[in-house]
Amino acid sequence: MHRLVIVGGGFGGINVARELKNNPDIDITLVDKRNFHLFQPLLYQVATGSLSPGEIAAPLRSVFRRSRNVRVLLGEAVDVDIQARKVILSDGELPYDTAVFASGSQNFYFGHDDWRKYATGLKTIEDATEIRGKILMAFEEAERELDPDRRRAWLTFLVVGAGPTGVELAGALGEIANDTLRNEFRSINPKDARILLLDGSPRMLPSYDASLSAAAEKQLISLGVRARNNVRVVGVDEHGVELDAPTGHERIESRTVIWAAGVMATPIGRKIAERVGIQTDRGGRILVAPDLTVPGHPELIVIGDLAAMSQDGHPLPGVAPVAMQQGRYAGRLIRKRLRNQNAPPPFRYFDKGSLAVIGRASAVAQFGSLTVHGLVAWLLWLFIHLMYIVQFHNRVLIFIQWGFEYLTYNRGARLITSPDEMEPPPRPAP
Amino acid sequence: MHRLVIVGGGFGGINVARELKNNPDIDITLVDKRNFHLFQPLLYQVATGSLSPGEIAAPLRSVFRRSRNVRVLLGEAVDVDIQARKVILSDGELPYDTAVFASGSQNFYFGHDDWRKYATGLKTIEDATEIRGKILMAFEEAERELDPDRRRAWLTFLVVGAGPTGVELAGALGEIANDTLRNEFRSINPKDARILLLDGSPRMLPSYDASLSAAAEKQLISLGVRARNNVRVVGVDEHGVELDAPTGHERIESRTVIWAAGVMATPIGRKIAERVGIQTDRGGRILVAPDLTVPGHPELIVIGDLAAMSQDGHPLPGVAPVAMQQGRYAGRLIRKRLRNQNAPPPFRYFDKGSLAVIGRASAVAQFGSLTVHGLVAWLLWLFIHLMYIVQFHNRVLIFIQWGFEYLTYNRGARLITSPDEMEPPPRPAP
Repeated sequence: MHRLVIVGGGFGGINVARELKNNPDIDITLVDKRNFHLFQPLLYQVATGSLSPGEIAAPLRSVFRRSRNVRVLLGEAVDVDIQARKVILSDGELPYDTAVFASGSQNFYFGHDDWRKYATGLKTIEDATEIRGKILMAFEEAERELDPDRRRAWLTFLVVGAGPTGVELAGALGEIANDTLRNEFRSINPKDARILLLDGSPRMLPSYDASLSAAAEKQLISLGVRARNNVRVVGVDEHGVELDAPTGHERIESRTVIWAAGVMATPIGRKIAERVGIQTDRGGRILVAPDLTVPGHPELIVIGDLAAMSQDGHPLPGVAPVAMQQGRYAGRLIRKRLRNQNAPPPFRYFDKGSLAVIGRASAVAQFGSLTVHGLVAWLLWLFIHLMYIVQFHNRVLIFIQWGFEYLTYNRGARLITSPDEMEPPPRPAP
Repeated sequence: MHRLVIVGGGFGGINVARELKNNPDIDITLVDKRNFHLFQPLLYQVATGSLSPGEIAAPLRSVFRRSRNVRVLLGEAVDVDIQARKVILSDGELPYDTAVFASGSQNFYFGHDDWRKYATGLKTIEDATEIRGKILMAFEEAERELDPDRRRAWLTFLVVGAGPTGVELAGALGEIANDTLRNEFRSINPKDARILLLDGSPRMLPSYDASLSAAAEKQLISLGVRARNNVRVVGVDEHGVELDAPTGHERIESRTVIWAAGVMATPIGRKIAERVGIQTDRGGRILVAPDLTVPGHPELIVIGDLAAMSQDGHPLPGVAPVAMQQGRYAGRLIRKRLRNQNAPPPFRYFDKGSLAVIGRASAVAQFGSLTVHGLVAWLLWLFIHLMYIVQFHNRVLIFIQWGFEYLTYNRGARLITSPDEMEPPPRPAP
């Protein structure tokens, strides 16, 4: 029995396990600190009240219930013992013959960890429900606020980072202000909300074609979102954000700041590098060999956001399709080795295209040099996302949620929830 | 303009507002500490992973978006100023001409508030997700536990209180252990879970006909649930429960204790009583006049779980239909008064019947002296609950969730979530 330990049940990890699930000679342990696989590309929809957490998550045990050679374990991998070949958990250890690390990335505040509590990032279900609560609570506070300046601060929403996640969040915020909350308040008009999308680049969606950046900006403007390009966030506090703009220093008062600006690899990346005596890149990622192994350690494989790899002179992006393809590749590599077959050719990412949704019937898409925007891009986005959702179960539910939202402009999952069991969410100090 | 303040957006409160929503001469403020109406009878389905929180909650603003004379306010009513006619909020006040109090009940531990942290009750969405996490985590811990005694404690689930909520929770736990988790674990068999339903009464569902108690017990036994009647919980700690049983003192080791035993009125009940100089009953409820007003104060109306009222010598139960009928009655009463019409006859509860679901195609129902159990009762339960859900939107979603669950035995919303944003749920000390 070949013992394979997979760290992380995201897009990378589950694809390794799926590729090998019918191989009784491989004993797979999939370890994750959460009990579910999360469909990360739809997380912003939880943050903006369209979907419920359960609709974008699939219990890992349920995904692998029929795979008798796959064992799911709830635990956190914190280190690796290269000599003894053991993955060290926070409360145990797992011996391996091959280990795949696929624990992904986490929010990164460019060294300003104190910004974290004012500018929630969007990586976990808890992040998403926290952002959802903050957005809804801001409108509630504005409704009750009599002072016009403070009311304006409650109605100002800042999204930091104009990559796909930032654009999708800003677009959804625009829809909430313009459509979802229409007629629901008596003292404020939710349309008065000011939504700013801040980025240091000269244009939003810098990884897309410039024509799509322009199209996205136009679509966002129609939703009331204003893009502020070429600005750098130099401070975040309870009451707003400090910016370095081309026109000089600036302060924007806002009670709701959402962080979509940076991620870095999970800490296990640096641990692995330390143990094998190599360096990570600046984002904490392992520079992997062309077959995704750690240089000099064929028994260690690193995939997804935890791996750094270049292709045709460009670094591979930290997106789900890269992790999925790397996961399947890693599975094939392990199987071929065990069967003493020829190793597969070096990993190559096949870019099927990029998509970012902006709002109702509005999205941008890029397939190689082909660009599409508007309704066609949105339909493509819809189709692809529904197809990729892991469990058929959720796919139908999401389709219905979206159908109703499209028809009624309503969002079903608008709950302000709080970790504290007896209390309502704390009201921030004025 | 007649100023009506309604405290609480549960079944009672929203029915007052709905009854009066087309009366432009009544200015309604509905104040709740949560931003959503919760469909409480399905809360146990969130606690047991069948439904997501968003599916049993409707944003209050959305419910009343088209009712221009209804204003929704997020806030907590903490007191009332009878002379000045103001409801006192934790951060403000609301003047009224008439005030309706409908803030319901909360968990009650018979004076043992220290039990609360080991025995989660089921009143809020947060309670439900906490219970869900505890149940799922217990199986995860059992899977990793090597010591047989500790493993048994992880696989022992105690439900305290065998009223409808306790029976429904125990039944759902039985299904989770027998069906949902089948094949998902490699070291344990979830069927080995021991589920005990504890109650001080000689039989479960004491408010139902004895034949239904017997039917429910039989159905629960087939799901692996064992009823322990005539036992009194005298202690709850981190590792289990102390019981006074007919056979003497007993201790049961368990890591998952769910509290379905007692509720009491929210604290505003005692405040009102104090301000008007009357006594509450032992559960903190206001003994209301036959027209639901506070004796001597026609401008104060108390409904739902906050009100104590007897009918034909029996106290009205703390269930949704009572609150709904009282809410509609209160609305009519207020309207007739304003129009100087004759007051309606004293409130009478029309009991349409009681239903408790036990599991797949299995429930008990009582309509007056008519009793039904098994599939017919379950279909009735299904129909009635789908019809009552406030938003059409959710109704379809829930129907589909249930349909899939029925066909696949799977539960879609099995997430262990945690309030702490960066960490997985804490693992309890061994």
